[in-house]
Amino acid sequence: MAHTIREKAKLLARVRRLKGQMEAVERALEKEAPCGEVLQLLASIRGALAGLTGEVMEDHLHEHVQHAENEQLRAQAVEELAEALRTYIR
Amino acid sequence: MAHTIREKAKLLARVRRLKGQMEAVERALEKEAPCGEVLQLLASIRGALAGLTGEVMEDHLHEHVQHAENEQLRAQAVEELAEALRTYIR
Amino acid sequence: MAHTIREKAKLLARVRRLKGQMEAVERALEKEAPCGEVLQLLASIRGALAGLTGEVMEDHLHEHVQHAENEQLRAQAVEELAEALRTYIR
Amino acid sequence: MAHTIREKAKLLARVRRLKGQMEAVERALEKEAPCGEVLQLLASIRGALAGLTGEVMEDHLHEHVQHAENEQLRAQAVEELAEALRTYIR
Repeated sequence: MAHTIREKAKLLARVRRLKGQMEAVERALEKEAPCGEVLQLLASIRGALAGLTGEVMEDHLHEHVQHAENEQLRAQAVEELAEALRTYIR
Repeated sequence: MAHTIREKAKLLARVRRLKGQMEAVERALEKEAPCGEVLQLLASIRGALAGLTGEVMEDHLHEHVQHAENEQLRAQAVEELAEALRTYIR
Repeated sequence: MAHTIREKAKLLARVRRLKGQMEAVERALEKEAPCGEVLQLLASIRGALAGLTGEVMEDHLHEHVQHAENEQLRAQAVEELAEALRTYIR
Repeated sequence: MAHTIREKAKLLARVRRLKGQMEAVERALEKEAPCGEVLQLLASIRGALAGLTGEVMEDHLHEHVQHAENEQLRAQAVEELAEALRTYIR
């Protein structure tokens, strides 16, 4: 996963922030926080997740599709991106 | 958060599953898993997050908006839901 | 549809703009425009549709749920919003 | 737009169906239909738009990125898809 080796630190920081946001939802539910607070936490996760997913897709497109070492690897990377698009965009 | 007291266990289980999915992304990045695997993990989180957010919104709508104790609490619950919609649907 | 009587002109203008964006996609396909152009047209419709849907949901929440004339109408308006949320947020 | 020449009829049919759904929203607003009806029409457009956008992205990925005639055209097609992803996934 070349592009995440290069950008690994940056992506990991974003994933950990997202995990932290999910833990904030968990804590809010456990301590029976006001529902409006839980709703706002959940709603804000969507944007962070979309930003991260879009970035990994774009990295993948550049590194594994555009700059694939050969056509077989390119075809495989295309199929992986197509599958992720089918799961995400629906 | 009346509706999450009642449904607390069920919602907590879903939040923890989502946190687990985020941890799977973290581990995949750390061990430099194939990028297609990271992409697929990320894409599948979107649906789980949407399902959970939609459910909390609907619970909130029934318990805090429809069955509010008085009009002041209803107005507040409406504003919380409206704000979550503005953050989520964009 | 009280809230769309009041805001009818404004909402209609947005719906017509969206219809115009869809017609631009249709014309681009008919004249075999570059694919990048079609993609960009389609991608920008998503945000406009989300903005409009979120606004109608919020209007509905204020006028038909919060300010319902009686509890039976409120219950019906709640069910309509819940159903729209289930269709939209998934 | 090679892939829409080949699949032109199929894509045009989907775009026209979407335009028809938007016209149904327009008519519902004009005749002051019940708000729940407008909401349901709007909510169902999202899925149809997502399906169409995802399909055009995937076609583009296969025809203009994977099977580009040369590296310069490939780079351009990659940039077009990346831009559409940035607009759509947010």
